[in-house]
Amino acid sequence: MSIGDDAALWHCKRGFQTVLTCDWFLEGTHFLKRLHPPASVGWKCLARAVSDVAAMGGRPCCFLLSLALPARSTGAWLRGFLRGLGRAIRTFDCPLVGGDTTRQDRILISIFVIGETPKGEAVLRSGAQPGDRLYASGRLGEAELGWRELQRQRSPSRPTSKALLKHLYPQPRLALAQWLRRNRLASAMMDLSDGLSTDLPRLCEASGVGATIELPLLPLAGPGETDEAVDRAVHGGDDYELLFTVRPSDERRLPKRYGGVPLTRIGLISKGRKILSVTGRGETKPLRSGGWDPFRAGRAG
Amino acid sequence: MSIGDDAALWHCKRGFQTVLTCDWFLEGTHFLKRLHPPASVGWKCLARAVSDVAAMGGRPCCFLLSLALPARSTGAWLRGFLRGLGRAIRTFDCPLVGGDTTRQDRILISIFVIGETPKGEAVLRSGAQPGDRLYASGRLGEAELGWRELQRQRSPSRPTSKALLKHLYPQPRLALAQWLRRNRLASAMMDLSDGLSTDLPRLCEASGVGATIELPLLPLAGPGETDEAVDRAVHGGDDYELLFTVRPSDERRLPKRYGGVPLTRIGLISKGRKILSVTGRGETKPLRSGGWDPFRAGRAG
Repeated sequence: MSIGDDAALWHCKRGFQTVLTCDWFLEGTHFLKRLHPPASVGWKCLARAVSDVAAMGGRPCCFLLSLALPARSTGAWLRGFLRGLGRAIRTFDCPLVGGDTTRQDRILISIFVIGETPKGEAVLRSGAQPGDRLYASGRLGEAELGWRELQRQRSPSRPTSKALLKHLYPQPRLALAQWLRRNRLASAMMDLSDGLSTDLPRLCEASGVGATIELPLLPLAGPGETDEAVDRAVHGGDDYELLFTVRPSDERRLPKRYGGVPLTRIGLISKGRKILSVTGRGETKPLRSGGWDPFRAGRAG
Repeated sequence: MSIGDDAALWHCKRGFQTVLTCDWFLEGTHFLKRLHPPASVGWKCLARAVSDVAAMGGRPCCFLLSLALPARSTGAWLRGFLRGLGRAIRTFDCPLVGGDTTRQDRILISIFVIGETPKGEAVLRSGAQPGDRLYASGRLGEAELGWRELQRQRSPSRPTSKALLKHLYPQPRLALAQWLRRNRLASAMMDLSDGLSTDLPRLCEASGVGATIELPLLPLAGPGETDEAVDRAVHGGDDYELLFTVRPSDERRLPKRYGGVPLTRIGLISKGRKILSVTGRGETKPLRSGGWDPFRAGRAG
């Protein structure tokens, strides 16, 4: 594999299949230049795309980067960006093998990650069945909490809380996802990038099922009022946690934590297509999608 | 392979290797919304990336599309774009397998093409040796001529000349490139996207060689003054012709045309690193890079 030719060459190992994913990361839509440190932009653009590979139970292998920059961002900004990107490359063991650069009046990033899974073992969104238990990794709404902190903060260069660190430097759940795949524990899986209330309907749609979320079970993040934390957990984006389903007969094989990351049962897969939430008082309501959909809301984060 | 999961899955055939390439296609940089018909944008964004696969002697297999659109471009513009893209998909036999969409205030396209070549047979930029003959396919500067026509034209929706058609709907030289690879005729190869004077130095750099172009040999396009046509052939971008080198002993196996496309000897690979041009009067000058480099000039086309 080499940079500098018209295209990069990629050899897939025998018995494996290639996983392909692409992601935008755009100034003004996915990050704000005045708030997000360039090292965070470098880290996060790769981490988000790697998270899509993780969500299939895959291992990232290499990536291509399409980068458009204004002339004023080629100095200190670019150095910071490359520092964060370099750290992500080493952490995820995922080298850059090609790309395309051009000039624009704002920073545009498009990332293509190539990964692999043993043939036939990729965990899809479409495998959930009625009766399966719905699980989430980590704490939900934590990155949203960090994003709100960042907006309040004066000097964004020194992240002070776990929530802010998660917003700026999210950790795709690679080891956990591969462990779930190897042990055939997840019947369906995806990563939570746009928020539970936006992503869960996608998993249900792909599987042809409904679901019920029990709000009191949600693994909440940070301090503050419980109602606010529940709202963040349901609608907050950018967590890059795993949302997965487990057959009832497999549930006893699932630990409470894996590598320090809590695994929490948050609901149940059901027949039909309804997606419901149940409150602590036993009230059942349709789960309204309120996560981050760039075609509906223009906010960054 | 399916759309709608976190990532797409790709199986590489045994004995083949995967070719990966990505390309920007941005409003205001690579096309102008007021001049370029949406069908041309749809065709060209895929054709350009497919041309990179062709340049390795590869066959395109599938692609991912990252698309950012303003709300006002989701109606008639998007339909025209998808019509042109659909025609390219059928022509190149290269289906869409995944992507990412978001909203922006201008049209941003990032394309990722996956192709294949028999293992070890990809034609690289780095194989040229002193003494090799330098060849180009087609007519050089033709797309540049078409771009100038487009700028003069009132109603851009009905292309009237071959040059304008080449600018709007370029044809990557897939069949020719694969034939050159199969017959081991090209020692090095790349596609001409930014213009001969910008791309030739890249091939020479990769091969560690120099080159001399004979200007009177250049296959010129269109009417007009010879000096202007030579200038377009040397510096004009967007032709997506093949630039390749041939060992002296292989030259007799190379036909004058392949599939109706002329193959023209335009110069010679030399020792050292100098890249020179020789005029009809025998004057030798360094070839100055004047092709389209988006970091140097902001023009579209």
